[in-house]
Amino acid sequence: MSSEEAQAGDGKLYLDDLQVGQRFTSGPHAMDESGIKAFARQYDPQPYHLDEAAAKKSLFGGLVASGWHTAAVTMRLLVESVPIAGGVLGAGGELNWPRPTRPGDVLRVVSEIVEVRPSRSRPDRGMAMMRSETRNQRDEPVQIMTSRLVVPRRPA
Amino acid sequence: MSSEEAQAGDGKLYLDDLQVGQRFTSGPHAMDESGIKAFARQYDPQPYHLDEAAAKKSLFGGLVASGWHTAAVTMRLLVESVPIAGGVLGAGGELNWPRPTRPGDVLRVVSEIVEVRPSRSRPDRGMAMMRSETRNQRDEPVQIMTSRLVVPRRPA
Repeated sequence: MSSEEAQAGDGKLYLDDLQVGQRFTSGPHAMDESGIKAFARQYDPQPYHLDEAAAKKSLFGGLVASGWHTAAVTMRLLVESVPIAGGVLGAGGELNWPRPTRPGDVLRVVSEIVEVRPSRSRPDRGMAMMRSETRNQRDEPVQIMTSRLVVPRRPA
Repeated sequence: MSSEEAQAGDGKLYLDDLQVGQRFTSGPHAMDESGIKAFARQYDPQPYHLDEAAAKKSLFGGLVASGWHTAAVTMRLLVESVPIAGGVLGAGGELNWPRPTRPGDVLRVVSEIVEVRPSRSRPDRGMAMMRSETRNQRDEPVQIMTSRLVVPRRPA
């Protein structure tokens, strides 16, 4: 197998293919009111995610998506936009929601590799740090996440 | 209104009622295979969350829940177990998944207040840091999260 095939194959990237500064941009995902409420009913049943009148009186001033909904949609967009071999597999990370996601917002995720580190104990894998900004249609960040990804090394 | 009513009222806690070391324990939530796959189909469509045969060949050795599913269920359990006035409102935090959640796991969340800080610029609110461990039925942590919560101060 040529190294090109090893890298490309199904088009997936191994740790060896990742570089600091490498960027990935997702397609769009529109957030609507019914989806925001459905997620909230199941996972985050609080008034500002469920009820317009109550949300108006909250510090958000209107209905907003659960931050965990924004995070889940971000994951969907990462799976579609970051072609890492073995999948987008996070061991953890840091999460910030600088502003809420509202009904009608259209989200995209722009990701950048900020660190690549082969494992010393496991020669078959390594860790990549990726910073992902989830932005709305005004290009304002609604979520900033730095994730530690487990990434396989290219088979010898 | 007596101070007891101010604190109790609907039983909700203001920043003034929170103390470092204060703990909250949630009820249980059982994770089943169909729920794990349903979440994954919508938000994290990767083989080890969707397909047993593919999951067996992955580094998990079997079907596992998306970490974002564990996080969303954790949020639900926090809403039910942490009675903060104005809701459990996170501005961000740090998230770690030391081991996966598997079908049949029963999760609980144990939370502890680790810092309480009134805002200097906004006299009506403050920040509380809370460490929440999501544990399975063997008391092993599947998620460790430290969240920055926005908490209202008790009205004068």
